Amino acid sequence: MNSPSRLQGIFTPNIVPLDAQGEINESETRRYVDWLIDRGVHGLYPNGSTGEFTRFTVEERRRIIEIIADQTAGRVPILAGAAEANTRETIRACEHYHSLGVRAVAIVAPFYFKLSPAGVFAYFKEIADNSPIDITLYNIPLFASPIDVPTVAKLAESCDKIVAIKDSSGDIPHMMRMIAQVRPLRPDFSFLTGWDAALMPLLLIGCDGGTNATSGVVPEITRKLYDLTMAGKIDEARSLQYRLLTLFDAMILNCEFPEGFRAALRLRGINTGVGRQPQSPTQQIALDQLSRELQCLLSAAGFTDEPIGGCPVGQMQDDAQYDSDEITRIVQGVVGELKRRGMAH
Amino acid sequence: MNSPSRLQGIFTPNIVPLDAQGEINESETRRYVDWLIDRGVHGLYPNGSTGEFTRFTVEERRRIIEIIADQTAGRVPILAGAAEANTRETIRACEHYHSLGVRAVAIVAPFYFKLSPAGVFAYFKEIADNSPIDITLYNIPLFASPIDVPTVAKLAESCDKIVAIKDSSGDIPHMMRMIAQVRPLRPDFSFLTGWDAALMPLLLIGCDGGTNATSGVVPEITRKLYDLTMAGKIDEARSLQYRLLTLFDAMILNCEFPEGFRAALRLRGINTGVGRQPQSPTQQIALDQLSRELQCLLSAAGFTDEPIGGCPVGQMQDDAQYDSDEITRIVQGVVGELKRRGMAH
Amino acid sequence: MNSPSRLQGIFTPNIVPLDAQGEINESETRRYVDWLIDRGVHGLYPNGSTGEFTRFTVEERRRIIEIIADQTAGRVPILAGAAEANTRETIRACEHYHSLGVRAVAIVAPFYFKLSPAGVFAYFKEIADNSPIDITLYNIPLFASPIDVPTVAKLAESCDKIVAIKDSSGDIPHMMRMIAQVRPLRPDFSFLTGWDAALMPLLLIGCDGGTNATSGVVPEITRKLYDLTMAGKIDEARSLQYRLLTLFDAMILNCEFPEGFRAALRLRGINTGVGRQPQSPTQQIALDQLSRELQCLLSAAGFTDEPIGGCPVGQMQDDAQYDSDEITRIVQGVVGELKRRGMAH
Amino acid sequence: MNSPSRLQGIFTPNIVPLDAQGEINESETRRYVDWLIDRGVHGLYPNGSTGEFTRFTVEERRRIIEIIADQTAGRVPILAGAAEANTRETIRACEHYHSLGVRAVAIVAPFYFKLSPAGVFAYFKEIADNSPIDITLYNIPLFASPIDVPTVAKLAESCDKIVAIKDSSGDIPHMMRMIAQVRPLRPDFSFLTGWDAALMPLLLIGCDGGTNATSGVVPEITRKLYDLTMAGKIDEARSLQYRLLTLFDAMILNCEFPEGFRAALRLRGINTGVGRQPQSPTQQIALDQLSRELQCLLSAAGFTDEPIGGCPVGQMQDDAQYDSDEITRIVQGVVGELKRRGMAH
Repeated sequence: MNSPSRLQGIFTPNIVPLDAQGEINESETRRYVDWLIDRGVHGLYPNGSTGEFTRFTVEERRRIIEIIADQTAGRVPILAGAAEANTRETIRACEHYHSLGVRAVAIVAPFYFKLSPAGVFAYFKEIADNSPIDITLYNIPLFASPIDVPTVAKLAESCDKIVAIKDSSGDIPHMMRMIAQVRPLRPDFSFLTGWDAALMPLLLIGCDGGTNATSGVVPEITRKLYDLTMAGKIDEARSLQYRLLTLFDAMILNCEFPEGFRAALRLRGINTGVGRQPQSPTQQIALDQLSRELQCLLSAAGFTDEPIGGCPVGQMQDDAQYDSDEITRIVQGVVGELKRRGMAH
Repeated sequence: MNSPSRLQGIFTPNIVPLDAQGEINESETRRYVDWLIDRGVHGLYPNGSTGEFTRFTVEERRRIIEIIADQTAGRVPILAGAAEANTRETIRACEHYHSLGVRAVAIVAPFYFKLSPAGVFAYFKEIADNSPIDITLYNIPLFASPIDVPTVAKLAESCDKIVAIKDSSGDIPHMMRMIAQVRPLRPDFSFLTGWDAALMPLLLIGCDGGTNATSGVVPEITRKLYDLTMAGKIDEARSLQYRLLTLFDAMILNCEFPEGFRAALRLRGINTGVGRQPQSPTQQIALDQLSRELQCLLSAAGFTDEPIGGCPVGQMQDDAQYDSDEITRIVQGVVGELKRRGMAH
Repeated sequence: MNSPSRLQGIFTPNIVPLDAQGEINESETRRYVDWLIDRGVHGLYPNGSTGEFTRFTVEERRRIIEIIADQTAGRVPILAGAAEANTRETIRACEHYHSLGVRAVAIVAPFYFKLSPAGVFAYFKEIADNSPIDITLYNIPLFASPIDVPTVAKLAESCDKIVAIKDSSGDIPHMMRMIAQVRPLRPDFSFLTGWDAALMPLLLIGCDGGTNATSGVVPEITRKLYDLTMAGKIDEARSLQYRLLTLFDAMILNCEFPEGFRAALRLRGINTGVGRQPQSPTQQIALDQLSRELQCLLSAAGFTDEPIGGCPVGQMQDDAQYDSDEITRIVQGVVGELKRRGMAH
Repeated sequence: MNSPSRLQGIFTPNIVPLDAQGEINESETRRYVDWLIDRGVHGLYPNGSTGEFTRFTVEERRRIIEIIADQTAGRVPILAGAAEANTRETIRACEHYHSLGVRAVAIVAPFYFKLSPAGVFAYFKEIADNSPIDITLYNIPLFASPIDVPTVAKLAESCDKIVAIKDSSGDIPHMMRMIAQVRPLRPDFSFLTGWDAALMPLLLIGCDGGTNATSGVVPEITRKLYDLTMAGKIDEARSLQYRLLTLFDAMILNCEFPEGFRAALRLRGINTGVGRQPQSPTQQIALDQLSRELQCLLSAAGFTDEPIGGCPVGQMQDDAQYDSDEITRIVQGVVGELKRRGMAH
């Protein structure tokens, strides 16, 4: 068996703190590593989607891994995102990260161009045949070419270096199909989910763990959810999964990914700085409001104080439902008024 | 050749006027037929999507064709929508409409269930092999199983009774691929577009005509656009196509199809009555506002008076642009206020 | 509380046996009802998607419910699919099915036309305000307008007659969001899943049951899966869920829905007859082959004999993997050969 | 007016020739520039999708522009793809390409992450406010975040440096809506289409030109199509558009983009070398076969000799139709045989 240890548990996709000039904030990046390990995450996963790997340069991506590997110092395994412009550059990244002692790399399927299954296979095969380090496939069909089940099975069978898949599709039968096909061939192969919203059910049908963005913000909850689920304490786990879903939805909906996670992490005391994707004034206002809501959710969980002005009491009261018809009516009125004044058409 | 005459020109998809009880308004349906023929449409197309065929009963669908065939009395050809629950019922409808003297039937691909190309082929083949009347395939992938190019070619080749396709995909290269494959095999085969927004370009690449919902509201414009385009008067046609697009967009966006067409037709003096799909209070307000906007567009074209209160002067001025950021800001404020009052969450 | 009893457990979507003329086979329909009840299903669900309600006439849909209600004679509750051409016709169906003593009706969201959430709300509101019988919303976004979470919450809050949702989206977080929003308002509201492939995880996150097509073919497995899951026997349940997924995939992929279920049911001794959707010769060959595979799966579960010629031993052997590259190569060869002979281009 | 000259005509998206080591083949890149200019293209467009900009490193992208700008030496305008990892890096690329004297840059909307319209606006606004060189927006919703019509209008209105849009959506009404909204505000703004399959219709509804991959392979045809269309010679133009569609389809379907264009360009005598995306053995076989078909198409147009073995005579004969049923039947047989032998499941 080629793997020193099987990949399992919760790997946190690291957000990269930036300083006032928009550069990598090394000291805060190091402090964040300690903060996460202290709160029980099983591993770290820098240069993932949450880590906004596409918004950094080649050199910056390397530096992020160097800082995090150095700070981690072997306390937990590291899964390093290694996708670069082409297979040759990606193989070089694999070699470098191997030299840094990370546990494995994670490589997203080709993006921008949408490849066929045959093209996805050829891409990973070439990398795996030339990589000195274990590889995790990263399937995120929302952003990149999908890695379908037969392709995963063929790669698992023909490439020893490929030891895991991180799947962010959120599709449970899809995960089951992969497990059913691959486990008999490769008992050492790990199945990790990137879909926090269904972490408990995915663990229950056989996943080995997850790489979950929420674990970067509330590692206490994610870890506890993992432990309860693996221990078969279904009722307690279910309740925690519902709470995690509320947090996840608040952070992922209504803003550009991963700005909601950045905002929440700031509330937990990590100085994330401002992200690299510019925000319009309207988006900035929406983010500020989101931050208040997140603070209410985090304070309800005991992680922060309430925001100034307090939080609404009870979100599910009869009169507190989101009345989309009423709001639409108000908006219609506003737009109508703007039209009458000739300010819109 | 099995066809009495080739299908070409603009076929109007008839809206069905309803009375106060929601029943078919026969006298207004008859008046509307005359109104359309007087304004130059080349043919009629009852029981299409604009005719909301799915919202009528089997008996009502038959009655609609009977009324319209009787009123038309041969002045223009009729294309009768004939899709029923299954092939046997559809064949019965074909037989009945044939006995009424309509020119051809139009049959939408199976909907609800999404069929494979092989299933779509088998469906139309069975109907065509048993139909006494010419058949137009109706491809509307937004609503029904798509009819792909190889399937059209195979059907055209193996079924003499299939004499045309109405394609509402709006995809010009798709139409070109069909024409390129089918014309050499079946010079009598007609290609009609249901996508008013691109009528001129589709005629220019070789279509024979269209079944266009806008022609039910502004038949004068659609007919003139057809004539200008066929005469090669590109500059005038283009200008009219842009005007038609503005009307089309106003009628099709921001409300349930085909409520915008109903609203516009009322402005032209046809008493359409209220549609069968219930509208929420908010939707009703939006429709009222849409009606005002449509009245401005129709009055600008000389078809109606301006609404009381007048129309905005010039929609494209610098300060009249739709400022989504400003409106979003206002809405944010409104929603924020509602939240503070505990009326939303 | 307005409901005589809460909807829970597995409701079987009845396939409709047809005779040699393609008419409803009443005696076999009755025999199938008994067969299902004998095998432990909690309820019946005629006129669903598996029951191909769109391929029957209004009169046939009524007759199906009449036969099944009569044969069931109160042994298990019946959920009767009641969607008709428009709200008025649907309300009439509700009244009729109420008079037959069925437990509730299930109404799919409007299909063909894609409605906005406001339109979906208005549609169900009008029906619920006029129905004498409890209503189950039926969300199947693959085939019909989606019913989104806020719409479910508003309908649950404003319509006592709406007592459940059947959701076939297969999206677990979506189900959780509905449960989180609706349960506090309506503790009597039931959540049923139509997605057999994830039945166990959906029950574990809080669903009350399912309307699952597999339960019409292997009711023994579906029932046992339900019982094991509700009893918290996770390991046994998981194993059964994987077996159900294999069966489900075999019946749902590679053929028109629900032909795979018809084929499997024939193997269990129910004379389903031939479905109403015509099959091309190629499709028929594929179905025959599928039937052999299904027989192997069913015989492995002890429900049938092996097919003549036997079944492959072990599907997961190293050399038995589906080698898509090899098959593609063969197909390339075939196509190339056809081209050389001028039989394809 | 801020633009030295309005962008119009056909800009060729340069494929990058590679040498045996997979490095940029400078001499062939230079020869290809001359070849294109000699054949009448109006401009060049390196680092576009056809130029596979995502598969090159930052340094390579810069070098490609340097080589092409140097070789072009002002003979035709250059539109340089300038998208980098983030706005700061992109602005640096704008500055560099400005110093090289290119006419404008083209910047694709953010990809991988899917941004909202507000995010897309903020992204381009920040770049445009800091760019010394004119900018073309690049909308390719298949690969990147879509740039919707209101966003284009707002950017055109608020950013003088943004002077054009290249739209590869292929949606004609979408293009018309942009033209209708933007032209009154910015008469200098250019509308270029990247959808070769509908070049003639798009020019006829008002586009200024195109950036069309086919022009890199058959610049003679694309240029002539442009000239005929602009001269109003509709019949001749239509005929050429159909021929271009056949070529376009052959190059774009059934292989990874842009491998079909590479293969065709090799047939025209440009030594493109092997692309950077690895191909599986099956894909390689398919590409070889595609190359034979392309050679037949190119030889029919007089650009190459026929392949050894000749070309099929007449593709549209009655017996030469693609018989998918027959092929499916053959494949079914093959797969069935493999299954019987235990080689597939």
